[in-house]
Amino acid sequence: MSVSENLDYAGLCARFRRIGLISDTLGVLDWDQATVMPEGSADGRGEQIATLSLIRHELLVDPSVGEALEAAGEGLDEGSWDAANLREMSRLYHDAVAVPGDLVEAEARANAACEIAWRAARENNDFAALLPSLGEVIGIVRQIAAAKSEAMGLAPYDALLEQYEAGTRVADLEPLFEALARDLPGMVDEAIARQDAGPAPIMPDGPFPVPAQRALGRQLMQALGFDFERGRLDVSHHPFCGGAADDVRITTRYSEDDFTESLMGVLHETGHALYESGLPADWRYQPVGHALGMAIHESQSLLVEMQVSRSRAFLTFALPRMKAIFGGEGPAWEVDNLYRLYTRVERSFIRVDADEMTYPLHIVLRYRLERALLSGDLLLEDLPGAWNDGMRELLGIVPPDDRLGCLQDVHWPSGAFGYFPTYTLGAMAAAQIYAAMRRALPDLGADVATGRLAPMLDWLRTNIHAQGSKLSARDLLIQATGEPLNPEIFLAHLRTRYLGAE
Amino acid sequence: MSVSENLDYAGLCARFRRIGLISDTLGVLDWDQATVMPEGSADGRGEQIATLSLIRHELLVDPSVGEALEAAGEGLDEGSWDAANLREMSRLYHDAVAVPGDLVEAEARANAACEIAWRAARENNDFAALLPSLGEVIGIVRQIAAAKSEAMGLAPYDALLEQYEAGTRVADLEPLFEALARDLPGMVDEAIARQDAGPAPIMPDGPFPVPAQRALGRQLMQALGFDFERGRLDVSHHPFCGGAADDVRITTRYSEDDFTESLMGVLHETGHALYESGLPADWRYQPVGHALGMAIHESQSLLVEMQVSRSRAFLTFALPRMKAIFGGEGPAWEVDNLYRLYTRVERSFIRVDADEMTYPLHIVLRYRLERALLSGDLLLEDLPGAWNDGMRELLGIVPPDDRLGCLQDVHWPSGAFGYFPTYTLGAMAAAQIYAAMRRALPDLGADVATGRLAPMLDWLRTNIHAQGSKLSARDLLIQATGEPLNPEIFLAHLRTRYLGAE
Repeated sequence: MSVSENLDYAGLCARFRRIGLISDTLGVLDWDQATVMPEGSADGRGEQIATLSLIRHELLVDPSVGEALEAAGEGLDEGSWDAANLREMSRLYHDAVAVPGDLVEAEARANAACEIAWRAARENNDFAALLPSLGEVIGIVRQIAAAKSEAMGLAPYDALLEQYEAGTRVADLEPLFEALARDLPGMVDEAIARQDAGPAPIMPDGPFPVPAQRALGRQLMQALGFDFERGRLDVSHHPFCGGAADDVRITTRYSEDDFTESLMGVLHETGHALYESGLPADWRYQPVGHALGMAIHESQSLLVEMQVSRSRAFLTFALPRMKAIFGGEGPAWEVDNLYRLYTRVERSFIRVDADEMTYPLHIVLRYRLERALLSGDLLLEDLPGAWNDGMRELLGIVPPDDRLGCLQDVHWPSGAFGYFPTYTLGAMAAAQIYAAMRRALPDLGADVATGRLAPMLDWLRTNIHAQGSKLSARDLLIQATGEPLNPEIFLAHLRTRYLGAE
Repeated sequence: MSVSENLDYAGLCARFRRIGLISDTLGVLDWDQATVMPEGSADGRGEQIATLSLIRHELLVDPSVGEALEAAGEGLDEGSWDAANLREMSRLYHDAVAVPGDLVEAEARANAACEIAWRAARENNDFAALLPSLGEVIGIVRQIAAAKSEAMGLAPYDALLEQYEAGTRVADLEPLFEALARDLPGMVDEAIARQDAGPAPIMPDGPFPVPAQRALGRQLMQALGFDFERGRLDVSHHPFCGGAADDVRITTRYSEDDFTESLMGVLHETGHALYESGLPADWRYQPVGHALGMAIHESQSLLVEMQVSRSRAFLTFALPRMKAIFGGEGPAWEVDNLYRLYTRVERSFIRVDADEMTYPLHIVLRYRLERALLSGDLLLEDLPGAWNDGMRELLGIVPPDDRLGCLQDVHWPSGAFGYFPTYTLGAMAAAQIYAAMRRALPDLGADVATGRLAPMLDWLRTNIHAQGSKLSARDLLIQATGEPLNPEIFLAHLRTRYLGAE
């Protein structure tokens, strides 16, 4: 290539803008598929998504991109948005070229086949039936980890973590997760004993019509700052946040017997949505304008769901709205009761139903097991036993079958190794960011209780959302909270909420 | 290029498959924009659509496509689907490369600006305000016509027609439209006199709740063969048929005061949808598997709406369903009354509200005026007067203002010259195809009256839909009906329906 250096960077920006717009289009296709697409149209949709994904991949791995990346750095100010943009471009490029095309194809095929096998195996509680296809998936994940490891100079599992949370290493995770594994089991005992000594929470009596639930969800979303001029709330089987930054679409599912679970799901996705919609508009479609990794994304959903929405202050604000919409009266419709409901701790088998306090133990289990599976220290056929041993050690309960045990999650069958840790990194980051925000906004509790939620969003916009991917997650946390991820802040939050610590 | 001839054609198929899948994606984006997209997301959607459109254009005009097209023909059997596919590829390629890129850009800009100016001009009844931007649009359309004329060896207006209906020439249109202009005005007089001598139709009394209207629409769509496993019915401001062949999405708009208009709109779009879903699945995403031009597409919607759904037989089938859904009783809910409502002839100013008999006169007017505008025989500032003169001559009425006259349609402001004729070509083709189907299916009338609509769809599937773009529209009509487009068949249909001819 014989273009000037300046042109190189401008050319890269044009290329990545195109890539970003294709990604947004895929966001619309995915949303459509999950919410409104007729079932019989799945094959055609699969072809559309495969074609756009391939075009995006080709635009990214084009050799001209690699050449331009080498030259484009000169003239960009260190610490500038442009320099950060170039760093993110380079990261995406090197991630994409690290794995040979035939391995990417083999991965897609193996994951798709294993997901189908997993659905049947889970339904039939038949781990043995999953063994061949999950074995193949793990074999391919090992090859991908090796290829990325070599290309990036990282340990294999670090190379997998890098896919979901750039910059995170086992060396960082290990002390964090060991602190949780050490402190949480005893804290769970204590919380449950404390809770058993108090009054039992009362479930509000339904039915709760779906339109009323939707109206309540929309009210609270709007109070939190969700802009329905640039977003939607819909229904899908698995709740998610999708679409594009200027068109954020979240979903939920409703049960007419219980509005409380769906409502928290809506508020969780609202946290994701506020992050997306607050990303820096000046860098829309550029890599530096994208959300940081999964952990910071999850920190934003958990900040809204766990830190804010389950607080007594928020429930004080929300309760009159719930009562007005559902016509609720009586002891179930008291702030204290709702707070007890929304902060109930319980040892349970299923991760997605777990409460804030036991959830990290489910993650520690998966993190240990997936590392052992990949390294070969754990044979796949021994997974059910190892799972049950881990549950006994960490949570003190043993699932009666694999359906409630090692067959419950789609992540491994779909090839997602290195993903689970980001949930708990997000929970810890949420606690740390919320603590920093409370220091910056001394009136936060009173504001939330009266529905004055704009200062909170403003703070998040400035300190988190508008930062895009300019900094690493570590540097963003240091800038926003004064220190890197510190598990003690999360544990302190749990002690305050569940153990009555001051 | 040094690839074998066989590879050339296979390579072209892969390229056009990709182009076809991008088009399907654009169909989803367009549908989403018109039905569910939040208003504030319009800019981002515009960027997405522009990016995909540009990628599609680049894939099409790539010089390697032109080179491959030259060599790929050898070895393909004349008359085969592959040969027809190559012919369609070549047509699309030469159409796309005929116009220089800067002219395409200027066109997009001028049309977008003129559409905005048109909305205000129509609202304010201010034709003068539209003059500058419409003048620019016409100037650019002239340049495009000249460029295509030179590249394709066609007269300029023929080159514009070619964009919407390949193979149609002024020499074909002229006798068709002259026959209509000659016979229709007197027939309209006669039909109205005849209608005035009979009982006036009675509008069923509403309100007609939207969910009930939707349920009726869905019932009749299903009866006609619409597959809700591969399609949807939704609401948009302007009704359309969009999505993709395996995911056909039609829209309507509802008025609670009158169900009859929306229902016919739904049945019209159902005709388009059945065509799309019946295109040859073996050639999905290939040019030969696409729908033929606008006229055949419109013939399928008008066949379902005008020929079938407004017939006494269909209304006999539909009436009990209408009564059951709306609880209708009394003289308005008789087949004869509904038939009178649905076949009412009226001289009116607005094309989109016109009935089957006066509609072609609106088209003849526009066809004459757009040719005169492009040739320079008519100065743009003289358009309102010429419009009113034409209305007086063809329809015997003169609009009181330009809002009801030359400002009513978006087509010219959006650069669509050569498009209007396809509406009436479609109406004529619908009558001709329906007449052929009736000869082939002697029990058609009785079948329709009892809701046995499968034989009709089967015939259309075989003779029209599954033919894709294998033949030209002319050859398709000859194959399906025994002769090229013959206006006398359409006129005979009108005489039978409106003048009581046998």
